[in-house]
This record gives sequence, C-alpha cells and structure tokens, in this order.
Amino acid sequence: MLNITRRQFLSYVGAAGGSSALLKTSLAMGLMPDDRYSGPVKVKPASKGNKPTALILGAGIAGLSTALELERAGFDCTILEASFRPGGRNLTVRNGDKIDEMGNPQICNFDQQDNLFFNCGPARIPGHHRRLLHYCRALNVPLQIKANSSKMAYFHDDKSLGGKPKRIIEYHTDVRGLMSELLWKSADSNQFDQLLSEEDVSKLMKFSQTFGDLTENGKYIGSNRAGSTTDRMLDFPKPHAPIELKEMLDSSFWYGGLLGAELYDWCEPLMEPIGGMDAVVKGFLKYLKTPPVLNAQVKKIYNRDKGVEVTYEQGGKFHTVQADYCFNNIPAYFMAGIENNFSAMYQSGLDSIKRGHLFKIAYQMKERFWERDGIFGGISYTSDPINQLWYPSHDIHAQKGILLGAYTWDPKVSAKFEAMSQQERLKAGAISGEKIHPGYSKYIENGITIPWARMNHQMGCGMQMSEGDFEKYYHLLQEPEGRHFMIGDQISHHSGWQEGALASSEQALQQLNKLLGANINHGEASHVS
Amino acid sequence: MLNITRRQFLSYVGAAGGSSALLKTSLAMGLMPDDRYSGPVKVKPASKGNKPTALILGAGIAGLSTALELERAGFDCTILEASFRPGGRNLTVRNGDKIDEMGNPQICNFDQQDNLFFNCGPARIPGHHRRLLHYCRALNVPLQIKANSSKMAYFHDDKSLGGKPKRIIEYHTDVRGLMSELLWKSADSNQFDQLLSEEDVSKLMKFSQTFGDLTENGKYIGSNRAGSTTDRMLDFPKPHAPIELKEMLDSSFWYGGLLGAELYDWCEPLMEPIGGMDAVVKGFLKYLKTPPVLNAQVKKIYNRDKGVEVTYEQGGKFHTVQADYCFNNIPAYFMAGIENNFSAMYQSGLDSIKRGHLFKIAYQMKERFWERDGIFGGISYTSDPINQLWYPSHDIHAQKGILLGAYTWDPKVSAKFEAMSQQERLKAGAISGEKIHPGYSKYIENGITIPWARMNHQMGCGMQMSEGDFEKYYHLLQEPEGRHFMIGDQISHHSGWQEGALASSEQALQQLNKLLGANINHGEASHVS
Ligand SMILES: Cc1cc2nc3c(=O)[nH]c(=O)nc-3n(C[C@H](O)[C@H](O)[C@H](O)COP(=O)(O)OP(=O)(O)OC[C@H]3O[C@@H](n4cnc5c(N)ncnc54)[C@H](O)[C@@H]3O)c2cc1C
Ligand SMILES: Cc1cc2nc3c(=O)[nH]c(=O)nc-3n(C[C@H](O)[C@H](O)[C@H](O)COP(=O)(O)OP(=O)(O)OC[C@H]3O[C@@H](n4cnc5c(N)ncnc54)[C@H](O)[C@@H]3O)c2cc1C
Repeated sequence: MLNITRRQFLSYVGAAGGSSALLKTSLAMGLMPDDRYSGPVKVKPASKGNKPTALILGAGIAGLSTALELERAGFDCTILEASFRPGGRNLTVRNGDKIDEMGNPQICNFDQQDNLFFNCGPARIPGHHRRLLHYCRALNVPLQIKANSSKMAYFHDDKSLGGKPKRIIEYHTDVRGLMSELLWKSADSNQFDQLLSEEDVSKLMKFSQTFGDLTENGKYIGSNRAGSTTDRMLDFPKPHAPIELKEMLDSSFWYGGLLGAELYDWCEPLMEPIGGMDAVVKGFLKYLKTPPVLNAQVKKIYNRDKGVEVTYEQGGKFHTVQADYCFNNIPAYFMAGIENNFSAMYQSGLDSIKRGHLFKIAYQMKERFWERDGIFGGISYTSDPINQLWYPSHDIHAQKGILLGAYTWDPKVSAKFEAMSQQERLKAGAISGEKIHPGYSKYIENGITIPWARMNHQMGCGMQMSEGDFEKYYHLLQEPEGRHFMIGDQISHHSGWQEGALASSEQALQQLNKLLGANINHGEASHVS
Repeated sequence: MLNITRRQFLSYVGAAGGSSALLKTSLAMGLMPDDRYSGPVKVKPASKGNKPTALILGAGIAGLSTALELERAGFDCTILEASFRPGGRNLTVRNGDKIDEMGNPQICNFDQQDNLFFNCGPARIPGHHRRLLHYCRALNVPLQIKANSSKMAYFHDDKSLGGKPKRIIEYHTDVRGLMSELLWKSADSNQFDQLLSEEDVSKLMKFSQTFGDLTENGKYIGSNRAGSTTDRMLDFPKPHAPIELKEMLDSSFWYGGLLGAELYDWCEPLMEPIGGMDAVVKGFLKYLKTPPVLNAQVKKIYNRDKGVEVTYEQGGKFHTVQADYCFNNIPAYFMAGIENNFSAMYQSGLDSIKRGHLFKIAYQMKERFWERDGIFGGISYTSDPINQLWYPSHDIHAQKGILLGAYTWDPKVSAKFEAMSQQERLKAGAISGEKIHPGYSKYIENGITIPWARMNHQMGCGMQMSEGDFEKYYHLLQEPEGRHFMIGDQISHHSGWQEGALASSEQALQQLNKLLGANINHGEASHVS
C-alpha cells in the first residue's frame, strides 16, 4: 500500500470515476443498478431444428458463464482453452498442483489436507456482487463468511512508532479519537457558528464525544474500545496510551490499513466458497454440457460473412473451427500476437489494454500461531514490500494453516519479487513477516509464489488503460465486431473482480440478443436445473 | 438502542470504568492482561489416597468450567442444577425444544433441520476472549466466523430521513465524509495553527480527504465507497446523494449503529460454534466425569467447620449433601431466597446485584429474503422497540433461515414485551420488521420469544450494581466466604459474556489454590485428554 498514491490506489480497486463524456445513466443503457439485479440475461432461444453454434475462447469465469447461458438457450458451444486447466485467474492450489509460472514452474507442497489450499487469484466475494452470488447459488457452490478485516491484526510501518507493529483496533480507535478531539475543539471555539445553529453545534460536540470516546471535556485519553492493559474480566479496564496526533499524521496507516474495510468491494461481511474459490469453476463445469477443450491455444481469429473462423494449436497441431458467433475471453494484451481481420480501430483498442502486476506468496505454517495472538482471519498491513499478511478464517483451531505472506499490486514492488528466484522470494517474505510476528520464520514449512505477470496464458492481471485510451476505445470494445464479442473482466468497468467478468458476458449476450432481434431482458433469478 | 443514554449503553456492554478507588493494576493482583493468557489455572492436585470433594451449584458455563478444572486436579465433584437442562444462559433451541418461560412455556416449532437453530443467549465470541477460545479448542468445539456487522444491513429511524431505512454503508460513509469536511474546513481556516506546524496542518487536510473521500477542495459530495446508483460493473459509478449534516446530527444512528462494530467485545471478526452456541455446553459435558444432577434446586447453603452443607429439592424431595468446598454459580439475586449462614455483609453484597432485562424474538423465515438484498449476516438497527434484526451468516443460500427479530436490553422496552402475550410479541416484532423490509411478515412461518427476566431459574441476565454498591461489595464477593466461593459472570468485571463466567471460575480456583497453599499459576494452554 505504501509508495502508492491515493489515485493509483482507487484506480486499482476500480473505484475511480473517469471522463464525464462517457458518463451515462445506467437506465438509459437498460442496465440495472446493484440492487435491482434479477438474474442473468436470457439469450433468445434457438428456433426448432436450428442449433446455432458458438466458439468461446478461454475458459475463464467470463467464458464459462457465457457458454452456460448459451447452452441454456440451445446453442452448441466449443470452449477453447490454452492452459492445461480451466478457470483462468480463478486458481486454487492444493498438494501436488502445478503453478504454471513461465521459467519457474512450481509444484505445491502443502500437506494433503482439505483445509490446506490457497486461492492464488480471487479470494473474496462481497454481498453486492449479485451476478457471482447468483451463480454460487444456482451452481450449488457452498459459501461461508470470510473475515477480510480483523481489528486484532497489525499495522506495521518501519518509519512509525519505532517500527513496532500495533493492533489495528488501537490505531483505528485512536484515529477516531484524535479526529473527534479536533472537531470538538473547533466546535467549542465557535468555528461552525456560521454553519450550524447553537443547538446543532452542541449536538456536533456530543457526536464527536460519542464517535471518538472523548472525556466530558472533549479530550481523547485513549479508549476501552481498543482493549485494555489490564485483564478486563477481573479488573477495571485501562486503555492503552493513545498515539500522538503527529505520529498518526506521519504514519502510512491512514492511506493503507485505515481504508482496508472502507471500499465498497471490501464491505463487510465478505464471503468465500468453502474449500477454495475454484469451487465456482467446478460448479460451471458440472453444469456445462460440453467440457472445455484444454491445451488449445488460439492463434487466429477471422470474422467471416456468416460466422467466425478460429485456428488453434493443440499438441503441435493446428485445427480450424467455425461457428456462428465467437466470444473472446483471451486477455486483450495477447491479441496483438493473434492473427485476425479486425478493424484497425478495434485492434488499437485491444492493444491499449495494459496489465497489472499482482504478486502473492503463501506459506504453509506448521502452527496457526496467529490464533494464539487473538487473530482469526483478516489482514495485517505493513510498509514492507510484502504489503499484507492474510490469515485464513476457515478451519479455525486446526493445527496448520496457509497464510498469505505477501500481496502486492504496486508494479515496481511486484517487479522486484518477479525478478527474484523462488528461494529469494520466500526468504524475503519471511524476513518481512518477522517484523510483524517475531518468530514467524520458524513456523514456515514450505511456500509458493504467484507472480501473475509471469503466469502462463495470463502474464498480468486486470485491465489498465489510460484515461485517453479509455475514452477513445472502451465503448467500442463493449460492442461486437461483426460476430466477434470481447468478454472478460477487461471489458467491464470493474476489472479485477469476477463480478466484472460475469457482467462482461451479460453485456455480450445482451448485444447478441440485439443481433438476434430479441427483447433485451434479464431473466428471473433462475436455478440451473 | 434508542432512548438509552450513552452512559447506560456503555455500562450494558461492560465497557464503563468505575470508581478509581478500586482501581489496581492487574499485575499487582497476579492477573494477566488479555494478550498474555496461557491457559486455565491449574488447581493443586489432590495428594495420593485423598479425594477432596466439591459441590458446584448451577451448571452454567462458570459451574461447568470450575468442575472440569477440579476434576482434572483429582476432585470429586457434584453439580446441582435446578433446571431440566444444563447450560444456564447458554441456550440454543431447535425443533421440539422447550423454552422455560414462567407462565408462558414455549415449544420451538422450527422445522427439524440442522441449520434452523437459535441462540437464545450468547451468540458471538470475539477473538480476544482467550479463556472461552481455549475451551473451544480443548473441548473440540468447531468454530466459524460470524458476521456481526454488515455494511449492507439497514439503519432505520422513524424520525430520520422520513422513516426510510438506509444501508449502514451509506450512513457510515457519509458520517466519515461529513466529519472530514468539517475538519478540513477548520484546518483550512487556520484553526489548528497553534497546535500543529504548517506541514502537519496540510497533512491533516490530506488525511481528512482520504478518510472522508473528499474532493480536492475538501468538499464531501458522496462517495463510491458506499456503492453506486448505476451498475458499476458496466458503467461509471455514481454515488448516492449524501445525508445532510443536520439530518445526521438529528438521527439516532450515531449513538446506535455507528458504534455497532466499535466496542472491543464486538471487534471483528467474531466467531460462533458451528451448529449453535450450546456446542460449548456439550463440550464440557463430554469431558466431565460426572454429569450434572438435573432438576435439583438448591434451597440451603451452610458453611460448616470443615466444609459446606447444601440442601436441594428434587421431585419434591429434599436432599442434603456435604463437600469440602462449594462453588456457587446461582444468580446472586436468588440467594435472598436460599437459606444460609453467610455474614450479613456478604449477604448484602449478594443482594445488591440486580438483573438486566434482555429480550429476544426469533422467527423462522420461509425464505432468506435478506440475501437477495445483499445481506449475509450482520445487524440492522431501528428506532422501533425491536432495536435490532440479526441475519444468520451460516448456511448461506439455504432455503430457510432463523432471523433474530428483536433484541433489546433497555429495561423499559423489554418490560413492555415481557407484559405481552406470545402472539402480541410476535406481531409487534413483525410490524417493526416491515419498516425495514417491506413484505417481512409474509415470510414468517413461526417464532419464539425469550424474555430473560421471565426465564425459569434465571429471571434476568447480567450483573447490575450501583457504583456505590460496587465499591462496597464487589471485592468481597470475589473472595471466598469460608469454603464457599461465588462464581458466574456476575462475579467478574465483565458480566454478560461467557468469558466473564470463565474468569470468575479462574479467580475462584486461584483463591482455592491459596487455601490449599499452592503457588498461583496459570497452566500451559493444555488440551483436555
Ligand atoms: C491476485 C488476484 C486477486 C483477485 N481477487 C479477486 C477477488 O477477491 N474476488 C474476485 O471476484 N475477483 C478477484 N480477482 C479477479 C478475478 O480473478 C478475475 O476478475 C476473473 O477471474 C477474470 O475472469 P476472466 O474470465 O475475465 O479472465 P481470465 O480468468 O483471465 O480468463 C482468460 C482465459 O483465457 C485463457 N487464454 C489465454 N490465452 C489464450 C489463448 N491464446 N487461447 C485460448 N485461451 C487463452 C487463459 O488461460 C484463461 O483461462 C483477483 C485476481 C487476481 C489475479
Ligand atoms: C441475550 C443474551 C445474550 C448474550 N450474548 C452473549 C454473547 O454473545 N457472547 C457471550 O460470550 N456471552 C453472551 N451472553 C452472556 C452469557 O450467556 C453469560 O455470561 C454466561 O452464560 C453466564 O454463565 P454463568 O455460569 O455465569 O451463569 P448462568 O448461565 O446463569 O448459570 C447459572 C445456573 O444456575 C442455575 N440455577 C439457578 N438457580 C439455581 C438453584 N437454586 N439451584 C441450582 N441451580 C440453580 C441456573 O439454572 C443456571 O444453569 C449473553 C447472555 C444473554 C442472556
């Protein structure tokens, strides 16, 4: 989180606005705001005796969901997937699984136990990701609550508080206290008299007192809300000494950890599929009539008069297939290397999409030492390159656990990890972990690393476009070129989330319905039968 | 939460301080602050050929844990329990279970399904309740994360925003925005120049901007952190219109919902035993050598020269038993009706403990309609008497669910519910529920109500003492009278939490060790074998 401006930060999480030129109301587009979602688009059913065909390029979440909805409308689908496995960025690894990093293939060495898995890509689902939740329900993917933020976890900044980790609850409570104290002071010295009636000023002071847990005189002297230095079960609680205002302003907490539970996509409570995020992929595969063709790397895409023609390579051999429609889930930055007859403008649009550098480390820990420290899930934040530690919140009190030991999206920081050897990465992560949990290293049994920018058939994560390119090309890419539709989170406004991938297929299928002359409509929140 | 002063509120949750006369450091008392807990007190083991005896009065969490630790040291324990069931306030009901309300016995009508249960008493465990977590681990009680606060849930106040429920995330985000805007304004008009250097003032302004998501000019115009009025997956996000400062100051949110995740005992993430809180009781019973004697109501307690003599009634018959020591888990306000030979001072101390009026309603809902609305656990807050709605966060996407439809601890409000008939209670709850979720009533299949002040052998919950009484008596009650030890959350500083009950036994066993001439020590975080 450190060394990253607020703008970059918001842009990573997809919360930044953009040029107002493109801004249109959702209703004008026939789209639904979050809380009016009523299920996936129903594709116009094929007429009797006619089985339309579709090629789906890439078996990511977008490809899989597109195929499922098309099959439900009677289409015959072929899914071509370059990798040895379906799922794309939705990757969960367990004992024996391969991590297909280019130049550094890894085999996961976790013990063979159900609870020892790691979500290399997506790991959390907020309650307002309606499309994804619809599919979890329809595909019988069991969910559980995932503790994404823990007040018991730590914040650590080498340059703050002498480098000593501090519990987030202390930091968080002190921030509220210090802010409230200032607000109280201002209100008390008539600062808001122009703005508010006398009565409201006094309400504001009461508010500050409550919000920040101030004394009757508007002072912040620490708060029992952040715990106690005594055993509060058998004695009066005694608050920790509060952080100084100056120290607080100098620390990186307030643009890092403090926002950790504030952004809409991180809004508590979050969820996760029981047993690993790839349960979503498995759910799709279970309900799809035709399984994806694996190890099938697309090399050419041609729009023809009455369909699309695609050539792929499998085991050194080239195959050419045709279909009425094509839905392309391939990361756009690979399209430059795939022969095609798209318009120059469409091609430039695809080229303008750049990749993010996300990097994760996961360690198998021989003991869930963090639980002895009161931590049951959530995230610790640090100024070190590892950026975050995530504690598993499932299988509480099990002996071992998989700890996320690094999660960084700052391209410079990730690039440094990418350049290291496997051993160097694991060691660097261990050294940083020690700063938050002294003794950390001695619990490590083994580890894996996932540099998404070096993962085969991915080479990056998320869509990144300049504002200019966005304005110029994005709308274009949301429309089909001939009978070729781009899909994937890259084609949504919310890249980096499976919900965006699902929205992209929804959008493409709406466009398909237009071509088919159907009314655009959302289905009932239907169950797959 | 409404109509209850902040002071009362803090006192309910046990966060209030007290007279400093009693304040002593924990270390001086030999106690451990939260983060240095290392397991329960090891009672001095009985010497060979000698089996000391103990009577435990009441099979609440305090009684059960005391018995377990005594048995581990070689004591012969008899647990006398007045009710037909062990567990005391730790009560989970399922299909067919009896709710022993005096004058209104109920049988729980929930469908017979594992996920349809209701925790009538305790329902959540924070990560810093080390004693309880120790026992969960040692007794193999499986835990899961419980979503205690949900930003997607609602806040409703008849007198605010035209009585329209608002999502907590909007309220919460707007509060941050409005506070930050005021702070920014103050800093900008040199309000803090005496306090802070120029550089720090500008940091403070940046801080406010980040904290509240203000514009570059320090204005709060709503925030994408609270969601969007557009479909943000396929369009630019557009924030909801923010609440007006005046409206915010007038609403009851800031002393209710706003604190819902702030107090130490509600600090995220919270946990719950899988399948119901009574798993803790079952865990104790599994490891206890001697099961509690049920339907055994204690009538007399006499301290004798070399032990304690207790008389209880069972099935109309009186029995007198003796033991070397007695640990008394009976709610103190019943002691006035139990014959004894305690000192007048000790008796007055027991008499000074008053009862709280907690009241809950639970409905079986034929559909988990809240999940369609993006809510997966957590609490909605209302100005209506029902005070709170709790959504289950376990068994996500199941068909039915048990919803907590009222939870109030304001004695006046609870008393009103207590005075109603069963049908009136359920109906009142339904009417209030409608204000938050239109259509609420039509999902209700059946319901139960739990007025703790009318529950047999309980008649209240929690310890309430005036500050004067506390100062006068509390220390006394923490010490044994002869060989009689009071236990229960009532004897801890943290009544209303199982952790307090466990702490009380720990304390009593420490005192016992003193009598036995042992060194007072905490054990290793030992597993029951
Ligand atoms: C570290 C990380 C954390 C994340 N966290 C979350 C989270 O918590 N929650 C969440 O919802 N989302 C999260 N995401 C985002 C989520 O993973 C993506 O939004 C989603 O999986 C994208 O799906 P997709 O179908 O758009 O693309 P992809 O999954 O990238 O699918 C593209 C597919 O195309 C295939 N392909 C590539 N080249 C070819 C070719 N030439 N021929 C054929 N096939 C080809 C690839 O192998 C791949 O299967 C995270 C992602 C990462 C990397
Ligand atoms: C609505 C509610 C919500 C709560 N929420 C939480 C929570 O979320 N988390 C948490 O940790 N705690 C919570 N608590 C508190 C928790 O339930 C108590 O702290 C704990 O259960 C108290 O245990 P105890 O052993 O002290 O007393 P009790 O459980 O009250 O045990 C006393 C026992 O004595 C018995 N008895 C009474 N009279 C006699 C007699 N004459 N002879 C013999 N036996 C007798 C009773 O039947 C009972 O079994 C909640 C309580 C309530 C009511």
